[in-house]
Amino acid sequence: MKTAGLNREESSDMQKIRAYAFDDYAALVRSFHGSVAPGVMIGGFMVDLAYRRLPSGGLFDVICETAKCLPDAVQILTPCSIGNRWLKIVDTGRYALTFYDKRTGAGVRVYLDCAKLDPWPEIKNWHLKLTSKEAQDDDLLLNQIREAGENICSVKEVQVSPTFLNKKKAGPIAVCPSCKEAYHAADGAICPACRGGLLPYPSGSRVRRKSRTP
Amino acid sequence: MKTAGLNREESSDMQKIRAYAFDDYAALVRSFHGSVAPGVMIGGFMVDLAYRRLPSGGLFDVICETAKCLPDAVQILTPCSIGNRWLKIVDTGRYALTFYDKRTGAGVRVYLDCAKLDPWPEIKNWHLKLTSKEAQDDDLLLNQIREAGENICSVKEVQVSPTFLNKKKAGPIAVCPSCKEAYHAADGAICPACRGGLLPYPSGSRVRRKSRTP
Repeated sequence: MKTAGLNREESSDMQKIRAYAFDDYAALVRSFHGSVAPGVMIGGFMVDLAYRRLPSGGLFDVICETAKCLPDAVQILTPCSIGNRWLKIVDTGRYALTFYDKRTGAGVRVYLDCAKLDPWPEIKNWHLKLTSKEAQDDDLLLNQIREAGENICSVKEVQVSPTFLNKKKAGPIAVCPSCKEAYHAADGAICPACRGGLLPYPSGSRVRRKSRTP
Repeated sequence: MKTAGLNREESSDMQKIRAYAFDDYAALVRSFHGSVAPGVMIGGFMVDLAYRRLPSGGLFDVICETAKCLPDAVQILTPCSIGNRWLKIVDTGRYALTFYDKRTGAGVRVYLDCAKLDPWPEIKNWHLKLTSKEAQDDDLLLNQIREAGENICSVKEVQVSPTFLNKKKAGPIAVCPSCKEAYHAADGAICPACRGGLLPYPSGSRVRRKSRTP
């Protein structure tokens, strides 16, 4: 099903986030994310910066180092999504993303640089949680994000480790003898949910299971 | 930043996937996911079915039991995304999603039901990987998905465990003395990336780190 990652494109317009004016991107963020979250707005500049620093050619996947906000900037602005697996989350808690060539591992990592935040005190307060959410001035924060743009970010070339390059074969499917649902046979004689520890709700008799077939 | 999950809506039109005709939804899937993947198409019917079985009122988050395809159906059709955290992935490998009231934990789980696949052999072949991708008849598969609709799914009421209800406070932020980036102070004296084991690329001297400030 996977046919291609994202292709490199150049943008010479520093005022834009990819093809979008700041306010147009903010509207997309509100629609997809539910609010004009500071993290997704900054993430837009980070994605834009990464695109412009990619080496020529190639197909790129993305790694986000946080699950909070940043993945939505990637999903809004690139063909990479969680569901098509071109976007991966490796949660180190850092506000950073890496675009990498899925064949060679060569890529660029863009991160929110604490050393560049002093000229933008409201961004610094937000990023380092120096003020409470209640004390945060949302309008000032958004204005500072608009003015700062990519100037609060830094870029480094990186080489992604081979474990991220080779698409893992999921292998054969089995039907779990316990829940009767399909799962990856390599996970064992019964599925991980029935084995316990993963289920998002109590298993067995504690689950209210009214049979309601559609 | 989080203001609301998704609100319950009713749909009496069984031919549609939420507000969309099958082909219109397929176009959305192609745009967001990159291809009209069978899993995202079936996921559309699963999301639609879940919506119609939700209890009245409430704000709902979603858990997907696989990272493959299904999360994109949720992200296309609901306000829930990975980045706003209203969509969570608990990877049991099963093709199932759970919509649950984030205050009470009451919810519905929709799953692709192996016991209902016999009338749709191409869906069964795809789901259980009984044929190779090369031997898969993509047109026939999509037609069977269109015809089967929600009839290959089952629904159960579930009670999500309390660990998914209480929003975890991330706590204070620290600047890592090693990489100088912000991270969750609760993770220790240095960030998880510098502690090792999580980084998507080799750490230390093996990383090609040309300093290229924007």
